Amino acid sequence: MTKTVVFPVQIQFGDCDPAGIVFYPNFLRWMDSASLHFFMTCGVPPWNVTVQTMGIVGTPLLEVNVKFIKSATYPEHIEVHSFVEDWRAKVFVHHHTIKRGGDVLCEGRETRAFVKREPDGRMRAVPVPAEFRALCE
Amino acid sequence: MTKTVVFPVQIQFGDCDPAGIVFYPNFLRWMDSASLHFFMTCGVPPWNVTVQTMGIVGTPLLEVNVKFIKSATYPEHIEVHSFVEDWRAKVFVHHHTIKRGGDVLCEGRETRAFVKREPDGRMRAVPVPAEFRALCE
Amino acid sequence: MTKTVVFPVQIQFGDCDPAGIVFYPNFLRWMDSASLHFFMTCGVPPWNVTVQTMGIVGTPLLEVNVKFIKSATYPEHIEVHSFVEDWRAKVFVHHHTIKRGGDVLCEGRETRAFVKREPDGRMRAVPVPAEFRALCE
Amino acid sequence: MTKTVVFPVQIQFGDCDPAGIVFYPNFLRWMDSASLHFFMTCGVPPWNVTVQTMGIVGTPLLEVNVKFIKSATYPEHIEVHSFVEDWRAKVFVHHHTIKRGGDVLCEGRETRAFVKREPDGRMRAVPVPAEFRALCE
Repeated sequence: MTKTVVFPVQIQFGDCDPAGIVFYPNFLRWMDSASLHFFMTCGVPPWNVTVQTMGIVGTPLLEVNVKFIKSATYPEHIEVHSFVEDWRAKVFVHHHTIKRGGDVLCEGRETRAFVKREPDGRMRAVPVPAEFRALCE
Repeated sequence: MTKTVVFPVQIQFGDCDPAGIVFYPNFLRWMDSASLHFFMTCGVPPWNVTVQTMGIVGTPLLEVNVKFIKSATYPEHIEVHSFVEDWRAKVFVHHHTIKRGGDVLCEGRETRAFVKREPDGRMRAVPVPAEFRALCE
Repeated sequence: MTKTVVFPVQIQFGDCDPAGIVFYPNFLRWMDSASLHFFMTCGVPPWNVTVQTMGIVGTPLLEVNVKFIKSATYPEHIEVHSFVEDWRAKVFVHHHTIKRGGDVLCEGRETRAFVKREPDGRMRAVPVPAEFRALCE
Repeated sequence: MTKTVVFPVQIQFGDCDPAGIVFYPNFLRWMDSASLHFFMTCGVPPWNVTVQTMGIVGTPLLEVNVKFIKSATYPEHIEVHSFVEDWRAKVFVHHHTIKRGGDVLCEGRETRAFVKREPDGRMRAVPVPAEFRALCE
């Protein structure tokens, strides 16, 4: 049984656009926050710690797909429900459902990789650390 | 032959995250800007004009899919190359390629609909205005 | 004795810049959120309600002054402590202290006015509604 | 005669709020961009270069003051006109005037310091590098 973690958000005035609804990239911003929140809730340290201990600077995106079902506005309270849908050797898929009460507002899948910064400054994907995966399952 | 419009962006310090690269929702923000820029370049009025003349408040997202191929940082100059890949009765698909010189950084597809605000405040998708489609082809 | 309201924030990865600290305009974004949160906590409706009932679209800024004392980073929990420092006929001054535990990170003053949108689309400041002031004192 | 540098901005749909005008922290975001743009135009390298060559990670804020005179909306073209108003031993004051054609929209003053990151991770202000000041005067 995989872990699901909930990240609560209250939509702010400044998150909304002239149509009065959430400016859509903010939903992606909240999924990004929910992704790190998921890991920290499972016991994985934040990236400003892992960069010191393991060289891992974060989990950049390889792909994102989001379906938008209902719009939302301030000052509504919403929740991002997140779990890891798929673990592969070098990537994982984070699944996020954003809900307002019982309503699903949007569903997203982020394909991410753990990356280290090379001595030459380039970033390189590394295998999913086994100890991180164990914490999140 | 479909029209392609280029939207230039200079990446700013504040667009980048603690890993030193563009915080990914900003790529979606630039695609959103490029989508409206595409329409305005083709002769479609901005949404604060269409809301007065036709009731159209914008083109909210139904779905977005983005593949991230290379990272980018400030103060690089990049370009969003946009065209409409598919016109359907009530939705259209905006295709965006973000390039840095000859390098493709990411490729995205936004499925959008033109929407009006109903008297009760709800938003409802309307058929793609024929005169807008004609300007963009 | 004037009311003080606390708005909690958890700093996110995407709120931070390549120096690893909060990108400074985000502190202003949180003060803006704290300003509306203050009013709603005191019983004032959000602006998407007042625009329907009274024509008031919000409380745009006339001036802002912020002193930055300490930097902050993710995933720290901070708080914005807000009160109205001065009520004048047509403007008010919102004072915000952002704290991390006992440490003051920054102190800001926002001078704002309640505004209505005129039939010609222009925005015009109106006297501070007496019933709103009464709720907040 | 001090140097003035102009940073052009086109206001985007997503920069505006439900009142239909620029969400005010974005004006600060553009001043931040204009500040680095000023230095780079004068010949100072960006901070991801200076961090390698001199340890300087940027110019964090000590204080900001902005007066807002007129509102603005998309898709207007505006300009940030920037110069250094005051050079002191360890801080400098960046003055920004944001204009739309001949209209002044807002005026801001940012007090900033050049900072290095210490081996223990803390940031410390350093004297304004004389070679940078010489480039900007």
